[in-house]
Amino acid sequence: MTGAGITRERCEELDREDPLRHVRERFFVPDGLVYLDGNSLGALAKAVGPAVAEMISAEWGAGLSGGWDRWFYAPERVGDRIAPLIGAGAGEVVAIDTTTVALTKLLGAALAARPGRRVVVTTATNFPTDLYALAGVARLLGDVEVRMVDAGAVADSLDETVAATCLTHVDFRTGAMFDMAAVTAAAHDVGALAIWDLCHSVGAVVVDCEQDGVDLAVGCCYKYLNGGPGAPAFVYVRRSLQELLENPLPGWLGHEAPFDFTTGYRPAGGVRRFVTSTPPIIALAALDAALDAWAGVTVGAVRAKSVAMTELFIATVTERLGAEFEVASPRDPARRGSQVSLRHEQGYSIVQALIARGVVGDFRAPDLCRFGFTPLYLRYVDVFDAVEQLVAVIESEEHTEERFRARRPVT
Amino acid sequence: MTGAGITRERCEELDREDPLRHVRERFFVPDGLVYLDGNSLGALAKAVGPAVAEMISAEWGAGLSGGWDRWFYAPERVGDRIAPLIGAGAGEVVAIDTTTVALTKLLGAALAARPGRRVVVTTATNFPTDLYALAGVARLLGDVEVRMVDAGAVADSLDETVAATCLTHVDFRTGAMFDMAAVTAAAHDVGALAIWDLCHSVGAVVVDCEQDGVDLAVGCCYKYLNGGPGAPAFVYVRRSLQELLENPLPGWLGHEAPFDFTTGYRPAGGVRRFVTSTPPIIALAALDAALDAWAGVTVGAVRAKSVAMTELFIATVTERLGAEFEVASPRDPARRGSQVSLRHEQGYSIVQALIARGVVGDFRAPDLCRFGFTPLYLRYVDVFDAVEQLVAVIESEEHTEERFRARRPVT
Repeated sequence: MTGAGITRERCEELDREDPLRHVRERFFVPDGLVYLDGNSLGALAKAVGPAVAEMISAEWGAGLSGGWDRWFYAPERVGDRIAPLIGAGAGEVVAIDTTTVALTKLLGAALAARPGRRVVVTTATNFPTDLYALAGVARLLGDVEVRMVDAGAVADSLDETVAATCLTHVDFRTGAMFDMAAVTAAAHDVGALAIWDLCHSVGAVVVDCEQDGVDLAVGCCYKYLNGGPGAPAFVYVRRSLQELLENPLPGWLGHEAPFDFTTGYRPAGGVRRFVTSTPPIIALAALDAALDAWAGVTVGAVRAKSVAMTELFIATVTERLGAEFEVASPRDPARRGSQVSLRHEQGYSIVQALIARGVVGDFRAPDLCRFGFTPLYLRYVDVFDAVEQLVAVIESEEHTEERFRARRPVT
Repeated sequence: MTGAGITRERCEELDREDPLRHVRERFFVPDGLVYLDGNSLGALAKAVGPAVAEMISAEWGAGLSGGWDRWFYAPERVGDRIAPLIGAGAGEVVAIDTTTVALTKLLGAALAARPGRRVVVTTATNFPTDLYALAGVARLLGDVEVRMVDAGAVADSLDETVAATCLTHVDFRTGAMFDMAAVTAAAHDVGALAIWDLCHSVGAVVVDCEQDGVDLAVGCCYKYLNGGPGAPAFVYVRRSLQELLENPLPGWLGHEAPFDFTTGYRPAGGVRRFVTSTPPIIALAALDAALDAWAGVTVGAVRAKSVAMTELFIATVTERLGAEFEVASPRDPARRGSQVSLRHEQGYSIVQALIARGVVGDFRAPDLCRFGFTPLYLRYVDVFDAVEQLVAVIESEEHTEERFRARRPVT
């Protein structure tokens, strides 16, 4: 498939041939909306509302505290459903906390597991909250160096002072994707642990933690996993490391026997020890139901459609708006996640004008228009229509109107 | 009111006279159940299901990522609704994280604010997760002494090496309640910060953080606030301290300008800096709706009814089962929270037998039968009926039956 001169009819044909076309029906997508912001907040799966309502009325309302017999295991139960999406096994993932708190735990655990090594390697372009978590851990521990290098210089920056790498697999600004296997191997070569932030990867690109030798990972469940705003994060800890690592933020629900209420902490076996406190059961019910949308769907099929969509988008934008926008995402799909970012100095206003036309992307300062492609519920015609609207904005110059130029406090 | 010789008819009369009698209608309480475990998991308020359904379908489903314009402020918005229940002002509370993670933040912040002081005073009978959080912080920082003393010896244990006290206001086992004003003043006398865990206090007893000079507090929203299983915790930071303290687990949503995506962290003003990561919006919607049940209700009225109920329970149990049970809770209601714990060497089996009879309490090792009194939805007849069933269990000796003796993995 090429985007050059592609017609809407051809896109409709692609949709008819799409092996994932039936999955869109599992989601609510507002009529007439082209939602290219699922990399920020995934759409609502139809199973979520009824499942949460049932959890609230039957499990909590009628079952009351007796529900804990089942709820107690929710972090592992939901974690085990996420595991196949990242090439992890059962018992290697728990759904807990927020991404930043979860990453803080892994950083503390990794540093404790590599005594004498006080450097963590990251990139300055990493998602800022990862950098804040790193700075927080460095301040708590007092003697940690956060070494920020360019994405291309990670391997060269490694030496035997490095305790861990802490990298985001898919860059939130550009969608540029690390070679996870190669960087992980480079970390291992110097005896460091490889920690991956999979926020923009899980459910979007093929991740194989087992095969790639990944030690530790966190990820976000409200983007491509559609778990809802502020859904719990997940933590992956390679099985062979689980008994060697300690949770630096221990709490009673990661205790070996929480209901013994012992004064001293004894970590639970397995990945459970990374649970700190009472799991958010309502939020986990939403996430659990959202994962039902993956029934019969492979990450490979999602990735294939994602690549086709981003290729189509880039080709069409380049053809029709090549003089207006610089494609900030890698042109090689193998090095790109499931988003395309277009650089434009009036990017903020352009995104606002597009939203007013029913095409939702988002903006990342200083000049990136960001478009996420979520194969579970997007169609090829959506890609086509998005470009059409982008062309219309640029040709009409409506983004220069005052109404699209005022910044909102939050975006 | 005295419990001695009280009749069910008298309890019905007390219910008719109860100024909070109409509040029970705001909750689902299963027919025939006497639920004395609301100190573990509060009952479901009727407003919760519809509010969560609306949030999911309208805000998330239809509004998609545009919802963040409103959701961004949910931690403060819900926090401001909790504030009056603990004598805090607007802008002093945020609803975030879990209790243990929140407490970890406050411990780290307090130790950083008292350089040169490396002791935190607590009690060995504190809720274990608080002790685990303390041990975790001590291990991270490396040079912190956790000084465990008896509850009655806290004031005497304080000296100018103490950075903070970290105490649970109402003991989870016995319901024994600290004199918050006196202990806080004693902490201040040596220049220490007073951190209070209000998990078993908020919504149950009168707490006045402002008047008592409390510096920092955390609390649980799934007990007496009925926010649902694993509801977010809350953090209180006294206004005068907010700009002096730093969040030791920083994250992007506590940044002054999160959407600037700066490499370096700059804390937001006020209590917002204690937010780390994306707030759990569905769970906050549930909690927000649960707080509607407090409309027109004062903590003072709840406390008055709570004292009356616990007094009635203790008097009746003492009268009818005085030879069987030792009352482990303080007899002076001014020193007691909203629960009564009865000591019995077969306590586990007794609680199971009671549950089978429709009276839900819980058990805390080694020998405590624990009964929580939640005035928003409990009636005086429930107290009467609970004692009747307890008498029936003891007289029939059914708790000695095998079916009530096997321990479940959880509870």
